[in-house]
Amino acid sequence: MKKPFLGVLAIAGLMNALPASAQFAKPEDAIKYRKAAFVVMATHFSRIGAMASGKAPFDAKAAADNADIALMLTRLPYAAFGEGTDKGDTRARPEVWSESEKFRAAWSKMQEDMTKLNAAAKTGKLDAVKAAFGPVAQSCKGCHDHFRKD
Amino acid sequence: MKKPFLGVLAIAGLMNALPASAQFAKPEDAIKYRKAAFVVMATHFSRIGAMASGKAPFDAKAAADNADIALMLTRLPYAAFGEGTDKGDTRARPEVWSESEKFRAAWSKMQEDMTKLNAAAKTGKLDAVKAAFGPVAQSCKGCHDHFRKD
Repeated sequence: MKKPFLGVLAIAGLMNALPASAQFAKPEDAIKYRKAAFVVMATHFSRIGAMASGKAPFDAKAAADNADIALMLTRLPYAAFGEGTDKGDTRARPEVWSESEKFRAAWSKMQEDMTKLNAAAKTGKLDAVKAAFGPVAQSCKGCHDHFRKD
Repeated sequence: MKKPFLGVLAIAGLMNALPASAQFAKPEDAIKYRKAAFVVMATHFSRIGAMASGKAPFDAKAAADNADIALMLTRLPYAAFGEGTDKGDTRARPEVWSESEKFRAAWSKMQEDMTKLNAAAKTGKLDAVKAAFGPVAQSCKGCHDHFRKD
């Protein structure tokens, strides 16, 4: 039997803390928050990407720091896709809600991949970071293609 | 002699990782990033505030989780106030740059206060959270009043 992986636990932990509906006063607050969290996540993830692709010199400490921040950020936006947040200033497609199990699974996969990238960054080895970066990038892209408007 | 406090070390650690100017491709990226980081920070900080003020029931685990996220976020925006980021879609006043030492000191104070709030949240005691919340809120307000346009 496959053990539940860290991503699922991280999401579960966050979602159990407080129901999403109770966390934001208004749907637009949730939308603003999740977009902000994605901006921060993408910034730090892309700094690792710059090192993985050779566009920036490899700095083991910076890679590990950015990986910690990016991983922590993966815990945040999911709870902000609650009821009523499908309208307004958002590029989220209706599939986020109509295919909610698929969305949850894709999120968990991204967290799993980001957890592996984090572990890779902690080794201090560029080759490990390169190998672990691709799957996260694919997770991001897969979810954006299916669940986000262009 | 007063020991350097954690806030200063956290900022120093982040700023040493990579010069701010090298972290963002364009000034508008830095502005978007720092605003996003503030949105996420404020969201989690205000959840602790809701408990401290009695507007939300006290949940020790949620308070500790939110305090961890908020504290981590305090490390991020400072490095995004680099050169050339004083113009554009920002409410930052020129004083951020013309009084940069004061801005740095205010930032460090906020991190020190947030570190104490984090420790208070870890005690699991509402009274400790209440006592430690005010100084952080004052730090936020003081900085906004002086360094941010209305």
